[in-house]
Formats: sequence, structure tokens, C-alpha cells
Amino acid sequence: MRGLDGAPEWPSLRALLPDLAGKRVVDLGCGFGWFCRWARTQGAAHVLGLDVSAKMLGRARAMGADPGIEYERADLETLALPPATFDVAYSSLAFHYVENFAALLATVHRALVPGGKLVFSVEHPIYTAPAHPGWVVDAEGRRTWPIDGYRVEGPRRTDWLAKGVVKQHRSIGTTLNLLIGAGFTIAYVDEWAPSEAMIQARPELAEERERPMFLFVTVGRSA
Amino acid sequence: MRGLDGAPEWPSLRALLPDLAGKRVVDLGCGFGWFCRWARTQGAAHVLGLDVSAKMLGRARAMGADPGIEYERADLETLALPPATFDVAYSSLAFHYVENFAALLATVHRALVPGGKLVFSVEHPIYTAPAHPGWVVDAEGRRTWPIDGYRVEGPRRTDWLAKGVVKQHRSIGTTLNLLIGAGFTIAYVDEWAPSEAMIQARPELAEERERPMFLFVTVGRSA
Repeated sequence: MRGLDGAPEWPSLRALLPDLAGKRVVDLGCGFGWFCRWARTQGAAHVLGLDVSAKMLGRARAMGADPGIEYERADLETLALPPATFDVAYSSLAFHYVENFAALLATVHRALVPGGKLVFSVEHPIYTAPAHPGWVVDAEGRRTWPIDGYRVEGPRRTDWLAKGVVKQHRSIGTTLNLLIGAGFTIAYVDEWAPSEAMIQARPELAEERERPMFLFVTVGRSA
Repeated sequence: MRGLDGAPEWPSLRALLPDLAGKRVVDLGCGFGWFCRWARTQGAAHVLGLDVSAKMLGRARAMGADPGIEYERADLETLALPPATFDVAYSSLAFHYVENFAALLATVHRALVPGGKLVFSVEHPIYTAPAHPGWVVDAEGRRTWPIDGYRVEGPRRTDWLAKGVVKQHRSIGTTLNLLIGAGFTIAYVDEWAPSEAMIQARPELAEERERPMFLFVTVGRSA
């Protein structure tokens, strides 16, 4: 099992985070708790890891007790959080499973202190849009990622992880407008692509320059 | 020659504009001046139409004199504008020809009054990215828009309008981060798609739901 460093996009996502020293942090969709533990190594005062999977939380807890980390089972569709409690909210590749994204964002906005930040990644809509996602090589040997349904927003059924997993395809505009509507200020938007150095080290990453797989967003709560 | 109402995206773009009554407006890439004249029908106090094409400006001037409209030849690559002079800046399908976009945005930001708005459209990066843009129909009859080079940002050569016209392909993230870097606050982002009613009236527009051709952005100068 690989941790954060196994994910090629992690250095870029990490670079979007504010200094965590002394901060109260919530991880929305914490999985095995890799980020929660890493946040503590950065001096976070307290980290709340939330996940809908009891099995994942069990594994997270089994990886070592830390009085500064609390794991709780929670469904992001119906999440409740105390107001003005966190300095930083983080989420990696979880929000594209959430159907009621507007409600979640309202909850997260309220749970952050003024000046607090939300940093998250989701699967890029170019990646989630197609009815039949995948690479195609044409007669001239040109490798492309055929798009359709980009503005047909809503559920996409895939068999990744488990049969019948449903992703919510949202355009970048829809994601950003929901954030703005929840009261956030857009600070940074990255359709992630690997650096030249990363591609030299891992040539299979070159395809991420052809069509992005990840979208990173940093937003702030101003008031 | 069709005016604004010939462009199916115009009602959506128009809806992003603030009330123009009594406002000082600049149109960056005004072409034949359709928007400048329309802005005057909405009560704009003064409209400055800028375009690099003397021929287009000649046509614009020939369509009727209006003491509230001024046309000037200007290259958006090297534009200079007086500070804090405009309430609204508008640009339709011009910014994706601009190479030095950061410099232009700094100029526009400075030229707006605090509280001023910039509303613009560009060709969507899904549309500009591919080395060989176009629809493909596969063996199963599925119609898609094959993407490559989405994060290979920079010039794209096309033979549209004139031989050798160069577009600047920029990801949405890059466009938004340049706006934020220039001091703007992101207010709305729309990867334009036609409504059901529009598709019923003009069925050929349905393909815009498969892959967007236009990106609309509204930003504000806060201070």
C-alpha cells in the first residue's frame, strides 16, 4: 500500500496548503488517514479525519494512535460540522462522489474560521465526462482522449473500486460557481499536469499533459 | 452580416453584464462595433471600442456616428489605458489571440474603477487544445471530440479567418490564475452550453453540450 508519496500529484497538492503548524484541520474523505498523519508531522494541532467507510477508518486507527487525530465516520452527503472550528479543510479525490455538493460546501464554509482555507482535488471533468472514457489511437497513430457529454452534468457509473460506484460529473464552471455561491473566494485553480522532471522519472505520466485527470482548487473563507 | 443576435451564446453572455446605464464601458476587440452600439441602447454613457483592425473600425464607424462611442485602433498585446476610467470592460472572443495576457489583465485591472467588472468570452481550451481539432465518429457511431495537448499551453495555428492566424491555448486554470494574479476576484465561470429550448430551435447546437466551444468569465476589481 502506497501512502501520499505514491501519488504523483501529491507534491503539487501539498504546495497549495497553508502552513499547518498549530492549525485545526479537517480531512473530508480521509481513507486510511495518510493525510491526517502527515498534517500532524507538519505541526497541526488537531486533525479530524472523516470517511464514510468504517473499514478504512479501522485501518487508519490501526496505523497508530495519536491524541491529535480523531477519526469519525461521516457521509459527506449529510455532513454536519460545528461552526467556525477549523483553519484548514482538505479533501483528496472525494468531492466527485458527492451529489449534494452545494450543501457540503455550505457546511464546510460555515465550519471554517474567517481566513480559513479549503484545498481539494477532484477528478477532472475531462476525465469524468465521456460515456466511454479511455484513450483512442487513430489510423495516423495519434493518441487522443475522446470527449462527449461534457456539459451533460450528473452521475457517471463506473466499476472502479466496486461495482456500481457513481461519480458526479461537474464542469469546472459549475464547481467554481458552487464554491462562489457558498461564499468562498477562488484563490487558485490547477488542472494538474506533471513537470518535465516528473515525466523523465515516470514516462507514463506524460499522458496527463494530453488530458488532465485531476483538478485542484484552493479557496478561502473571507468573512 | 449577423449582429449580436446571430451569435447563439450572446443571451448568456449578455446576462453576465451589469446594468450599463450611465456607465463608462470599454470593448476590447470590438470588431464591427455591435456591442458598442448595443451598450449605448442600454444607456451606457460612453463606450470606447478598441480593435487592431483598421478595416473593422472603418466598418464600425460607417454604421453610424454616435457622440457616445469612440473607436480607436489598439493592439491588445501592448494596450495602454488611463487608470480608473471604466466601470465595465467587455471582450468577446479576442483574448485567446493575446500572447501577453498577464500584461493585458494588469492594464485592464488598473483601467477599471474599484467595483468595476470585466466580462469576457474566449474559445474554450477543450476547443483550442487539439493538434487536429474536429469531431470523430467511431465504429459504433459514437461522435466525440478527441483531446490532446490540453496542458501543452501556447500557440495553435489555424487557417480560420486568415492563413496563419495564431491562437493562444490556455487551460482554464491558467486563465483564472492570471486573473487572480492581476488582482481580480472571480465572480462567475461558464463553460457555455445551449439550453434545451435553444437546441429545439437550432438542433445543430446540441454538439455544444458534448464539448464546450466558449468559456465566459466575470471578474471584479475589488480595490
